[in-house]
Amino acid sequence: MSASAYNYETVKVSFPSEFVAHVELNRPKKLNAINDTMWTDIGAVFNQLRDDEDVRAIVLSGSGRCFTSGLDLFSLNLPTVADDPSRTAFKVRPYIKASSRTLGSINYTPIPTPLHPLSKLQDSLTAIEICDKAVVAAIHGPCIGGGIDITTACDIRYASKDAYFSVKEVDIGLAADVGSLQRLPKVVGNIGWVRELCLTGRNFDSKEALEQGFISKVVDDHKAVIAAALATASLIAEKSPVAAIGTKHILNYSRDHTVQEGLDYVATWNQVMLTTPDLPNAAAAQMSKTKAVFAKL
Amino acid sequence: MSASAYNYETVKVSFPSEFVAHVELNRPKKLNAINDTMWTDIGAVFNQLRDDEDVRAIVLSGSGRCFTSGLDLFSLNLPTVADDPSRTAFKVRPYIKASSRTLGSINYTPIPTPLHPLSKLQDSLTAIEICDKAVVAAIHGPCIGGGIDITTACDIRYASKDAYFSVKEVDIGLAADVGSLQRLPKVVGNIGWVRELCLTGRNFDSKEALEQGFISKVVDDHKAVIAAALATASLIAEKSPVAAIGTKHILNYSRDHTVQEGLDYVATWNQVMLTTPDLPNAAAAQMSKTKAVFAKL
Amino acid sequence: MSASAYNYETVKVSFPSEFVAHVELNRPKKLNAINDTMWTDIGAVFNQLRDDEDVRAIVLSGSGRCFTSGLDLFSLNLPTVADDPSRTAFKVRPYIKASSRTLGSINYTPIPTPLHPLSKLQDSLTAIEICDKAVVAAIHGPCIGGGIDITTACDIRYASKDAYFSVKEVDIGLAADVGSLQRLPKVVGNIGWVRELCLTGRNFDSKEALEQGFISKVVDDHKAVIAAALATASLIAEKSPVAAIGTKHILNYSRDHTVQEGLDYVATWNQVMLTTPDLPNAAAAQMSKTKAVFAKL
Amino acid sequence: MSASAYNYETVKVSFPSEFVAHVELNRPKKLNAINDTMWTDIGAVFNQLRDDEDVRAIVLSGSGRCFTSGLDLFSLNLPTVADDPSRTAFKVRPYIKASSRTLGSINYTPIPTPLHPLSKLQDSLTAIEICDKAVVAAIHGPCIGGGIDITTACDIRYASKDAYFSVKEVDIGLAADVGSLQRLPKVVGNIGWVRELCLTGRNFDSKEALEQGFISKVVDDHKAVIAAALATASLIAEKSPVAAIGTKHILNYSRDHTVQEGLDYVATWNQVMLTTPDLPNAAAAQMSKTKAVFAKL
Amino acid sequence: MSASAYNYETVKVSFPSEFVAHVELNRPKKLNAINDTMWTDIGAVFNQLRDDEDVRAIVLSGSGRCFTSGLDLFSLNLPTVADDPSRTAFKVRPYIKASSRTLGSINYTPIPTPLHPLSKLQDSLTAIEICDKAVVAAIHGPCIGGGIDITTACDIRYASKDAYFSVKEVDIGLAADVGSLQRLPKVVGNIGWVRELCLTGRNFDSKEALEQGFISKVVDDHKAVIAAALATASLIAEKSPVAAIGTKHILNYSRDHTVQEGLDYVATWNQVMLTTPDLPNAAAAQMSKTKAVFAKL
Amino acid sequence: MSASAYNYETVKVSFPSEFVAHVELNRPKKLNAINDTMWTDIGAVFNQLRDDEDVRAIVLSGSGRCFTSGLDLFSLNLPTVADDPSRTAFKVRPYIKASSRTLGSINYTPIPTPLHPLSKLQDSLTAIEICDKAVVAAIHGPCIGGGIDITTACDIRYASKDAYFSVKEVDIGLAADVGSLQRLPKVVGNIGWVRELCLTGRNFDSKEALEQGFISKVVDDHKAVIAAALATASLIAEKSPVAAIGTKHILNYSRDHTVQEGLDYVATWNQVMLTTPDLPNAAAAQMSKTKAVFAKL
Repeated sequence: MSASAYNYETVKVSFPSEFVAHVELNRPKKLNAINDTMWTDIGAVFNQLRDDEDVRAIVLSGSGRCFTSGLDLFSLNLPTVADDPSRTAFKVRPYIKASSRTLGSINYTPIPTPLHPLSKLQDSLTAIEICDKAVVAAIHGPCIGGGIDITTACDIRYASKDAYFSVKEVDIGLAADVGSLQRLPKVVGNIGWVRELCLTGRNFDSKEALEQGFISKVVDDHKAVIAAALATASLIAEKSPVAAIGTKHILNYSRDHTVQEGLDYVATWNQVMLTTPDLPNAAAAQMSKTKAVFAKL
Repeated sequence: MSASAYNYETVKVSFPSEFVAHVELNRPKKLNAINDTMWTDIGAVFNQLRDDEDVRAIVLSGSGRCFTSGLDLFSLNLPTVADDPSRTAFKVRPYIKASSRTLGSINYTPIPTPLHPLSKLQDSLTAIEICDKAVVAAIHGPCIGGGIDITTACDIRYASKDAYFSVKEVDIGLAADVGSLQRLPKVVGNIGWVRELCLTGRNFDSKEALEQGFISKVVDDHKAVIAAALATASLIAEKSPVAAIGTKHILNYSRDHTVQEGLDYVATWNQVMLTTPDLPNAAAAQMSKTKAVFAKL
Repeated sequence: MSASAYNYETVKVSFPSEFVAHVELNRPKKLNAINDTMWTDIGAVFNQLRDDEDVRAIVLSGSGRCFTSGLDLFSLNLPTVADDPSRTAFKVRPYIKASSRTLGSINYTPIPTPLHPLSKLQDSLTAIEICDKAVVAAIHGPCIGGGIDITTACDIRYASKDAYFSVKEVDIGLAADVGSLQRLPKVVGNIGWVRELCLTGRNFDSKEALEQGFISKVVDDHKAVIAAALATASLIAEKSPVAAIGTKHILNYSRDHTVQEGLDYVATWNQVMLTTPDLPNAAAAQMSKTKAVFAKL
Repeated sequence: MSASAYNYETVKVSFPSEFVAHVELNRPKKLNAINDTMWTDIGAVFNQLRDDEDVRAIVLSGSGRCFTSGLDLFSLNLPTVADDPSRTAFKVRPYIKASSRTLGSINYTPIPTPLHPLSKLQDSLTAIEICDKAVVAAIHGPCIGGGIDITTACDIRYASKDAYFSVKEVDIGLAADVGSLQRLPKVVGNIGWVRELCLTGRNFDSKEALEQGFISKVVDDHKAVIAAALATASLIAEKSPVAAIGTKHILNYSRDHTVQEGLDYVATWNQVMLTTPDLPNAAAAQMSKTKAVFAKL
Repeated sequence: MSASAYNYETVKVSFPSEFVAHVELNRPKKLNAINDTMWTDIGAVFNQLRDDEDVRAIVLSGSGRCFTSGLDLFSLNLPTVADDPSRTAFKVRPYIKASSRTLGSINYTPIPTPLHPLSKLQDSLTAIEICDKAVVAAIHGPCIGGGIDITTACDIRYASKDAYFSVKEVDIGLAADVGSLQRLPKVVGNIGWVRELCLTGRNFDSKEALEQGFISKVVDDHKAVIAAALATASLIAEKSPVAAIGTKHILNYSRDHTVQEGLDYVATWNQVMLTTPDLPNAAAAQMSKTKAVFAKL
Repeated sequence: MSASAYNYETVKVSFPSEFVAHVELNRPKKLNAINDTMWTDIGAVFNQLRDDEDVRAIVLSGSGRCFTSGLDLFSLNLPTVADDPSRTAFKVRPYIKASSRTLGSINYTPIPTPLHPLSKLQDSLTAIEICDKAVVAAIHGPCIGGGIDITTACDIRYASKDAYFSVKEVDIGLAADVGSLQRLPKVVGNIGWVRELCLTGRNFDSKEALEQGFISKVVDDHKAVIAAALATASLIAEKSPVAAIGTKHILNYSRDHTVQEGLDYVATWNQVMLTTPDLPNAAAAQMSKTKAVFAKL
């Protein structure tokens, strides 16, 4: 699909190189604060990218002065039922999950009527994780609260020197519920550091983030971090999509299972994927030091 | 909502008593064979019922001569990519799951563009399980193949004497993939019997189904089974919706976790639900042998 | 220990035969309604029995006219914090679980100060499950609400003809939270029947309970059901305690794990237990048709 | 392969009809007591059958007067290391599991030197479960101890009127460790009955086994039970092997996972299996009421 | 509660600032070697702190010259039953776990008779993890063996330059069984380093511990590490207790579950916690750059 | 056993010090490219070492110029069944897993007929993990593709300065299926870095590997890395084998379970292992600063 097929109010999509999409959070005057529309748009755009055969890798960044200043507090307007905490709880639940009153790990999909615009937080970000194409976050300036939820759902994180971060939710009186407490400890190897960040809400800068493994590259500025992320995305986009999409799919599965279950699953996945013509093509290209061309999925 | 809010081509919805909905599979001339539209409609109607505050229990039956003759084989039209089984697999996957190329237990929801009409099988039936309101299946005549997938996703199954059943998929060359092999063994206590049914595809009748616990009541005919299911649904609809919906939610969670994890989860659920005014109201009604009236959720 | 070591206000303990204890719920004038003290006593007595080397099997019954009429509603007195559902939830939580604000599957034990008398519901019944000695429930008359929670935590259930049952919680406005929704579906093989009972709260009698496998023997009356339970308990008490206690321990573990994990665990358990002198003793007794005598644990 | 390719000392293999193998425990003079060689042979024969393209379903029975009298006690000869229970435990462990000192769910396969003849109990029976071809147990006469371990690893159990059963291990001083405590509770829907059997070691007959769902058919005698099992095996052998083997594979996986994980796994399995030519062949045969012929796997 | 409510022989409790408790291991003449009494006291004090509404964050350190020299070997006195390794195992088990012969993840709580003083190791340290208030370990001097078990159960670890560490158990002939082998690999991101430490028992110093992420701050000396830990604890104690306690609770849950299960659980938790008045109070304070005051839990 | 008992075509075994084995990948002219024979040999040699009482720790390195250049592409020769992707999948599956058509976590062991030489990839490397003796990888020169799969299955990784690495599979058109995608993310604490490596296939050197925690020591050259690995292996080999083997066993178990399940399992393991005479011997040696001598397992 061309860029013109991607029309969203709060995110902008471009295609800087073959098979690479660039998604920008796009409320620059509001420091990309995440309002209702942006929650919807993030889920929708990654869903559309998932099904776009012309896309094999994605860069995600913020337009203007930063990645995001976090949740737009003016957009939060929780319902209550007077004198009944239980009915209030039933009303609040869909503000957190995609579909109202949904149980656990089973979320239903095709909904004929429009979703309530707020019903989308968790699943909106899970769309990044399950779009199957590699997502490289390119972060500059502040990346606060919801920005951590968003970037931990990406595969790879790069930042500019001026970037800084905060797991901010504790400061507004809540346990983070859109992914940071689930994903951040599985992304980084110093759990004491993670717990300190989540319990104090303190800022940390690019340098500290690099040392602790939250990001894996620091470059000079906004322009340089976009360039670095695009370079990695382009490199991934040159690979066989059977191999690259399978790799992300298997990494997602293996994170949540034992080593043995992961081995069993990849055997079932690869019992067909190994028969792809991409394998002999890629192997031949490797030997001849040429560049293989792979059909679309 | 009134019945007029429910407009579907292949399922019919009525409201025979207060807080009770009746859903009928409605392609009687085709023996309610499940075609593309019906897969979509089943998912959509149970999603709509989940959010309908006027509904607290649901009966599901087939119109005309039977519950369903199963999958409409003429609707099956799998895609292929010539000489590439791996790309064919990527195309086939969305025919089984709701969203194309989705990983495991994480399914994303809000989709701006129309879903391909076939992309809906598993999640369509999971919508029955997670609609949170109790669903009583009322089965008459044949209930074949996809009919087993549908009814095992219901909470309670009643049948008429003329009902008969078959886990038919093995006879058309495939391992069932819309829920029978997952749910049937967790519904019934004789696993040898379940495996025999799944591996031979043989028919079994109401009597055998009752003896083995697949259904829990056999009555005379179509009319009587509808009546019995409505009676149970009405009884459930009289209960506090905080209690009844919570009970189904907790039963679903507990099925898939250890006893201890289920106990821990219900403590977190009930730490707010026990504060409902329904509890003193219900307790008072019990003691005074009157009938309590509960607010909508 | 002798019976005199067992002093509880609401449960009575006797020792009808060698290595067999008989525990009676003992508020006969109140139909053994479960009040605060009884919750505490049930947990404490099964804990004491667990550590009593003279006990190898246990019968649990109700004194007077029935097993139990269920929760004593007059004992329920939930705390609230005005205008703050979240702080109310923190106060309610310890009424469900043993220890206030405890996470999930990890419950801490030695508490120097007295527990609040209400802080004990779930763990009180789990004490039956983990006391390691087989527990046979002997049920007569009504066995309502909390009675289901108690008896599903036992290993074996026998009943007299006059017994009847109800998963009553839905009728007082709550989802059962002391074990019925977790254990009952894992005890019985007809899940549709279980869901109907939990969602309607209807009564069912001994005959129906036997047919569905909730109990495994029906006898004439109170006296006969005690006799039948004692006979089974005595039979178990004659076995090697290494074998019998290990069997219950392994059955508990295996219920909550995959077949392969259960096999691995029993190998680790038996790598020492197979070296018990009970094994040659028991084998020799089997061959010579004599009765082996086993040392205390 | 022909029958002549199957040469074992303690099991006999024949091929009574197309694609059906019949395995007989074959120490009739010893009532098929399971000695070291038989443990090895059971594992080996089901492994060979798994790889035999001419086999699509299997019947397992005992030759002579019964299915099996259980473990041959004279074959049990556990090692000890004087004054060191820990080193003794390391020596005992391989007698339970296939490979010495193996961790949990990960068992290694190709072993160049001969396995110690006793190192095979658990995995020997797991070979029945994972051979992928349906196994129908045909039981007559006593089926004691290890016989329960064996038959619970089969898919379907039929018995003759004279059959009787016992979970005997508790009587020889041990918790069963070759599968009964893991598989029996997942095969049968009355857990109280299962626990009574495992804790008392008492006998139960065909009638009781049928009523409780441990077996699913009782017929007159040894000859009739073989005939019934062969009829079911033949019916299964007529199905597409892609469908039948896939069905058993998916049932095994789904038993040990949540419903949602089972649904996800079958989607990954079927994304290639649905492209089999067996599917149109089977569908066409169904419509034309003819019998389809399927290529070997 | 005031400090006078905390009376323990081997741990000392003070309250250096509002809502902050300071716990000191307090056998300075014995280098805080962990004897029977200290195992009991650690569990008891963290249990008491959990229920103390005046405490929101905790610092844990050692008095005198170090954190701890580890297990007091003179306190170890394992029971044996002559010539019976199985009965010995039953006697040894309660020395490791809190309650004798307890199964897996289900530990029962209220015990009327005094616990044997040794019956407390694992659960004593788990009390640190589940006390719900953040615990910051401030380590100086040697922190050996049991000291690793203790500090890995804390949320955050700081150390002075003179601190050094050892996973010492391998050197006294045992696999560590009080938490190090479970928690250390989930705290640190270099598993090869963890395995080297556990298998060699070698010392490592503050600098190495910082580089590998076992601790997250190194300061000059004993006094400075206490000050740094108190500063972080004070910062946490200023947050809404609904938010801070919820954050630790959710981090604990999420560590042991998949990302999707963690997301589902936090939705159930927050469906009531989001209705706390702390949220608008905290949000208002953030905007006005003032300091919010939060009610006790 | 002596070195002469170890005869393999592609791996060489020596015994440089007491209780220490040294395994070398030994196709130096082919840069230790992993061909069919080497897959078989790796599994077989670690299986033999597991059962060798004279071995307590193992070093694994490559002979000649490097650790390994990865999979020998000339050895890959996948089977196909014309026009039938489902039957092709059944044929491909055994090339990935050890035993053909095996389900998930249950792999059967004793196979009377020779395995097809290619049927061995995943289980061959799992043999390293479950051999129970600590394995230290000593890496020099290139360590590509399959080399990552091999070394992530080791406990500890050291490298020389000239070593470099690549998760190469994506470049030959496949998702890695022999362990890298399962084990690497559980070995290293920067998941973004791991995903970048797996998705780009780029090289990384010793320095980067050390900084990210993939290896834990860098030394000058091939000779030095062998010496460092041998020193660590020798240190481990001096420990009580009950303690060291138990430690690796428990670390493997704990990686794949919750903290609480790990604690429960180690209690069951240690209820016998704590009774080893190694414990008093080791404790006495510690106190007297002498070196304990431990009996073989």
